[in-house]
Amino acid sequence: MKAEIINIGDELLIGQVVNTNASWMAALLNKSGISVVQTTTIADDANAIKSTLDQALSRAEIVLVSGGLGPTKDDITKKTLAEYFDSKFIFHEPTYAQVKKIFAARKFPVTEVNRQQAMIPEKCKPLFNKNGTAPGMWFEQNGKVVVSMPGVPFEMKAMMTEQVIPAIVSHFNLGTLVNKTVMTTGMPESMLAEKIKAWEDSLPSHIKLAYLPQPGIVRLRLSGKGKDEQKLKAEIDLLVGKLKTLVPEIIFGYDDISLEEVVGQLLLKNKKTLSTAESCTGGYIAHLVTSIPGSSRYFEGSVVSYSNRIKTDLLGVHAGTLEERGAVSREVVVEMAEGARAKLKTDFSLAVSGIAGPDGGTEEKPVGTVWLALAGPDGTEAALFHFGEHRGRNIRRSALAALNMLRLRLEK
Amino acid sequence: MKAEIINIGDELLIGQVVNTNASWMAALLNKSGISVVQTTTIADDANAIKSTLDQALSRAEIVLVSGGLGPTKDDITKKTLAEYFDSKFIFHEPTYAQVKKIFAARKFPVTEVNRQQAMIPEKCKPLFNKNGTAPGMWFEQNGKVVVSMPGVPFEMKAMMTEQVIPAIVSHFNLGTLVNKTVMTTGMPESMLAEKIKAWEDSLPSHIKLAYLPQPGIVRLRLSGKGKDEQKLKAEIDLLVGKLKTLVPEIIFGYDDISLEEVVGQLLLKNKKTLSTAESCTGGYIAHLVTSIPGSSRYFEGSVVSYSNRIKTDLLGVHAGTLEERGAVSREVVVEMAEGARAKLKTDFSLAVSGIAGPDGGTEEKPVGTVWLALAGPDGTEAALFHFGEHRGRNIRRSALAALNMLRLRLEK
Repeated sequence: MKAEIINIGDELLIGQVVNTNASWMAALLNKSGISVVQTTTIADDANAIKSTLDQALSRAEIVLVSGGLGPTKDDITKKTLAEYFDSKFIFHEPTYAQVKKIFAARKFPVTEVNRQQAMIPEKCKPLFNKNGTAPGMWFEQNGKVVVSMPGVPFEMKAMMTEQVIPAIVSHFNLGTLVNKTVMTTGMPESMLAEKIKAWEDSLPSHIKLAYLPQPGIVRLRLSGKGKDEQKLKAEIDLLVGKLKTLVPEIIFGYDDISLEEVVGQLLLKNKKTLSTAESCTGGYIAHLVTSIPGSSRYFEGSVVSYSNRIKTDLLGVHAGTLEERGAVSREVVVEMAEGARAKLKTDFSLAVSGIAGPDGGTEEKPVGTVWLALAGPDGTEAALFHFGEHRGRNIRRSALAALNMLRLRLEK
Repeated sequence: MKAEIINIGDELLIGQVVNTNASWMAALLNKSGISVVQTTTIADDANAIKSTLDQALSRAEIVLVSGGLGPTKDDITKKTLAEYFDSKFIFHEPTYAQVKKIFAARKFPVTEVNRQQAMIPEKCKPLFNKNGTAPGMWFEQNGKVVVSMPGVPFEMKAMMTEQVIPAIVSHFNLGTLVNKTVMTTGMPESMLAEKIKAWEDSLPSHIKLAYLPQPGIVRLRLSGKGKDEQKLKAEIDLLVGKLKTLVPEIIFGYDDISLEEVVGQLLLKNKKTLSTAESCTGGYIAHLVTSIPGSSRYFEGSVVSYSNRIKTDLLGVHAGTLEERGAVSREVVVEMAEGARAKLKTDFSLAVSGIAGPDGGTEEKPVGTVWLALAGPDGTEAALFHFGEHRGRNIRRSALAALNMLRLRLEK
């Protein structure tokens, strides 16, 4: 079963509003076993609406339209759909009751413009809009379905979840689609692809794999299609299990969970506390950890020791170590981690010292050279990384590598 | 001049990733005087790519494509474009040099898969990707232009700003368009709109104003269209000067400069140093400050005192003050700022203590209650804010308000 999404609105085409409706609608359709083959954004323009509908209906059985249902002149979707389906208008009493109710609640008078909102094409089945005045419209033609919904996200979302999806599943008597996303960190997409090549080549044809890279993270998405949801889930779980044996150290979770959330859950489960001592990451690890609600239950604090003076004054790093080894060294990062663990009195402490760039690199220690250390009840470990030349990505990759080091220790 | 945008990627059609590229590209095209008539999102599918290109080229002179340029098997844009333009592949030495450079910086071996990234269609003009391995491609046919760019936002954005837009403006000999963006913080869009209404109403018809809100920041973009660039610039500068007299305290800079960069420049100019003492912002202010290259010249460090114990142990906040006034109070945030200034030995210190949420609010101090303090050579000031219910936005708004407090002090 194939669907297309058409989002109508000038504000989307001048880039003033990010089109979040398309991805939200697509995610819900996929969950319901319906593939989205295309999403199209067009202006409030009758010809564009009609020709886009023509094309969408040539490729898909279901076309979902959002936007252009407001009471103002620039919104022409309803009128255009009536023309497209060659339908006259009728007055729809339940819609008018809803318009009056909403205006009464806001103590606004109902005007003639508002009364027009209760005029709907005779050939559509109206969909009640519990959050607004403009009803949705369900059209059928040649076995295909076109549904028009408001563009206001919370009106569209309620209508889609409660009415449109159940009606589509029942109308087309649909099967199922199962997605599972594997979250990885610390290995570039191309290297990962080579490591898991044999596994990828062995995937059955009804299960697809996609690589979705972000700075420091690669998501692997498995999508399976079939009739038996339980069987599909089991099949995908088995494949993910095999994948995990190939690259165990880089998989930190599933289905869009963040690494900072995984680490937080592990700290809570193990009843352990964390602090950080950050040089080149400049507080970014602390920021990631504290972006999770409830992090005050396991995160005590951080010393951002950007200058060497703070490393000695607040973390107790020896001036001699800094002088002999340099701030970006195994010895200094170990003293930072152990110093933070002692001074901030936590079970674990993560420390980072590196050269984020663009300046400060040398031949021996180029930009992107980063030392990480983790001090904990069972001792301290340290590791050297080379993250490349981009300052922002160096900071992000350093933070993710540090959190992953803690995750691996906590999962032991 | 009309353009269309085609975004390619399965991840967009299953709704896993919100398509922010489309709106970003559309906004930039509009700024350059080019109307976007349609944006289309399709799968990594050769037939879909070809037929969407056919249709887009039937409506627009410029077609910008993003996505599907990765090294893995699911990315087929390059191969499909070569077929579409009936072009063979050639090996492109500068691209291979960039691939090797990026891999060398991370000390990863270059594989055969990576070498394939340097094969490009002979009929395209390659566009250098300074942030990644996949080059962009500029094709021309029948007086129209098709440009393919990576889907990774920061790679696409650099390529689009620095190469694609200037090349389009020059290729199509477009008129001149002058943009100036005024950066504001600390006032919601609707309140700002009321304050500057008379000024906005007085704008001449060839100069447009757009409000571009982000969490904690509203950008005001003035776009003027005409033939004489110098005259347009002078006219816009005059209007911005008038605007500045209306809302002087909230304007921190121009043309997408960040507040953290403005603050950094002011600290450098005044030869002053900074530290932070952060509770609810959890290191985010330090992260913003250190995201600017060269920040080590004025930023010494931070104490992220997430727990009360760290506030007393590391910042010298009195246990009595915490007990009597609570962590979120004028007295505590003042002691935090002054403690950080003394312990970290800096000219200025910013401190934040608040309730980021979603838990921890009370009737007296609801979620979003945030105290800020700034300690400096001329004394300490503190202020109370109410930022609302959303955790992430509370953290961001607190950090921006703190940096703005420092900016106003430094500009005095």
